[in-house]
Amino acid sequence: MSPDRLSRVFAALADPTRREILSRLSSGTRSVRELAEPHDMSLPAISKHLRVLERSGLIARTRDAQWRPCQLQAAPLKAAVDWMEQYRQFWEQSFDRLDDYLQKLQAAQAKEPHAAQKKPKQKKR
Amino acid sequence: MSPDRLSRVFAALADPTRREILSRLSSGTRSVRELAEPHDMSLPAISKHLRVLERSGLIARTRDAQWRPCQLQAAPLKAAVDWMEQYRQFWEQSFDRLDDYLQKLQAAQAKEPHAAQKKPKQKKR
Repeated sequence: MSPDRLSRVFAALADPTRREILSRLSSGTRSVRELAEPHDMSLPAISKHLRVLERSGLIARTRDAQWRPCQLQAAPLKAAVDWMEQYRQFWEQSFDRLDDYLQKLQAAQAKEPHAAQKKPKQKKR
Repeated sequence: MSPDRLSRVFAALADPTRREILSRLSSGTRSVRELAEPHDMSLPAISKHLRVLERSGLIARTRDAQWRPCQLQAAPLKAAVDWMEQYRQFWEQSFDRLDDYLQKLQAAQAKEPHAAQKKPKQKKR
């Protein structure tokens, strides 16, 4: 996928209304009117979001009906996930570090009486 | 992750320069000047991109040096990938369909002489 196409996919996903539209389309095709319903939005406003999604390749509007229902096209998401996967080792490392830290914290709390003998804490009286 | 934070992560990724910055930071911390070098960009323009990345949580600027080096923070990518994973079945289906189509096409080409007997094609002379 070209850098421009990848940018269009990420830009399309950078809006909660557009992500909600994709989520609704995952259960089947929908008309523009149906997609507008749950949002307090005008048809032109929803149409603008649909154009962004269409340009990114994340939805397609079928031509078999006059009302041109919208359909989810998930393939561009694969390219986006593939791009992100190259950073998996980094986020796993950061979660591992957090995990280590929490384990050490728990271990320290479990050993607290012993630790307190070595390095007595000042207690409130 | 809140919808707003997720939107900020996707918006930050929707630019090839910002993705390139993340890629460079995956090999270690860098100064703003170092990040600006490979791009034909002013320091203020790069700084603007860095602010977008910083607000999305994808980079952090350490405070241990006066030049405040930038550091990759990959954890928000996990939330973005997790969000995308709910669509995996859809993109896998679409690639499976493409695969089926290509296999049928190859099978049809392999059988072509036989198919041609049944339904002769007009040949150019």
